[in-house]
Amino acid sequence: MLRRCAAHFRALGALRCPRGGGRPSPGQLRPFSFEKIVYKDCSIPNPSWNKDIRLLFDQFMQKCEDGSWTRLPSYRRGSTESIQDFKTLLRDGQITKEGHITQTNLFTRSFEDGLGFEYVMFYNDVEKRMVCLFQGGPYLEGAPGFLHGGAIATMIDATLGMTAIMAGGIVMTANLNINFKRPIPLCSVVVINSQLDKVEERKFFVSCSVQSVDEKTLYSEATSLFIKLDPDKSLT
Amino acid sequence: MLRRCAAHFRALGALRCPRGGGRPSPGQLRPFSFEKIVYKDCSIPNPSWNKDIRLLFDQFMQKCEDGSWTRLPSYRRGSTESIQDFKTLLRDGQITKEGHITQTNLFTRSFEDGLGFEYVMFYNDVEKRMVCLFQGGPYLEGAPGFLHGGAIATMIDATLGMTAIMAGGIVMTANLNINFKRPIPLCSVVVINSQLDKVEERKFFVSCSVQSVDEKTLYSEATSLFIKLDPDKSLT
Repeated sequence: MLRRCAAHFRALGALRCPRGGGRPSPGQLRPFSFEKIVYKDCSIPNPSWNKDIRLLFDQFMQKCEDGSWTRLPSYRRGSTESIQDFKTLLRDGQITKEGHITQTNLFTRSFEDGLGFEYVMFYNDVEKRMVCLFQGGPYLEGAPGFLHGGAIATMIDATLGMTAIMAGGIVMTANLNINFKRPIPLCSVVVINSQLDKVEERKFFVSCSVQSVDEKTLYSEATSLFIKLDPDKSLT
Repeated sequence: MLRRCAAHFRALGALRCPRGGGRPSPGQLRPFSFEKIVYKDCSIPNPSWNKDIRLLFDQFMQKCEDGSWTRLPSYRRGSTESIQDFKTLLRDGQITKEGHITQTNLFTRSFEDGLGFEYVMFYNDVEKRMVCLFQGGPYLEGAPGFLHGGAIATMIDATLGMTAIMAGGIVMTANLNINFKRPIPLCSVVVINSQLDKVEERKFFVSCSVQSVDEKTLYSEATSLFIKLDPDKSLT
């Protein structure tokens, strides 16, 4: 998918969350407002994180101390750019009918703590590598007891995409090709290792593996192609 | 991902939802219980559905009248099979530490009405075709104003997977290959057309397109390979 995320990423320090990080319940969809917003970085440990992801988090934070690795912050809301985009959504019957604009959430941050995607990414700029530590919660179920393939694809897409963004700026996913080797148990922690393989003009080739914490189990492998966009290019 | 869904699908009539279909808020994660459950089919219109998906829903319901097409019901919770699988999860530190088993949700049904995945699938058994009508809500955002690539991949995986399940029974996704052509505006409706292309022994090849309601815009295309499993085969 299209990622107007170079600007997005540069603006990370100015992204917005609802107060308390909560979500509206049915019938309580709130009008978009600049008043009820705070900054909350979702890429730091919360009480739902288990010992596996905490241990790896601490290890990578140590690697960050000499500047070789960088932890990427992550926020629930889109940037102020979304306001303009929302104006196009006003054509939609559902939204105009309700008379207000519903708040949006970044998909990977749209669950309460612990229920959905718990993750943090670390980037090594010299090696053009991204490591994503991912704990998939109980609302990401596919086959009973295991993560849904779509949830895995989502974290793979997010990790590959961020790798391309860090290396190339504003990019759009053109292809995503995933080989699923083994199902991932719900609530377990996996490590997504991604790297930039090749750049050909505007084409960025990025691949990754999804492994268990002890590296003994290879769950998935994926390749992807991202296209670098002109910053002034229309999204549609 | 692995889909132990032939049995899953056969058991659709016995799947479970929490009373009222709601979800626990933080600190209210409820113990798994057979008492607070009701049946709720999520594949029928709710107030969040816009006019586009309602119109298509009505058209396909008419096609169901002669039996050529069948609407597939869909539920928030996994089947009772999940109980056994959950026993394996008890090894996980987080869950045992909290002293109870958190309820799980099928990933594609884990949002409140209108916020996430709103969809319904219709199957034509003679043609081995599946049509999924999909309205992606404001919690599925990627680039501002557009669906996250992972959300699209999720609905593609769900549709392709259900096509393979209806044709082949218990299957596991081995490969998912998606070409993203254009970004999908948030809250718009798209139509996923999927069909079984080929069967080679245990291999089921399924492909699909993702188009706008007026069929003028091709958003994505995908191919996939599913492997039929022995019902007694271990999931891991």
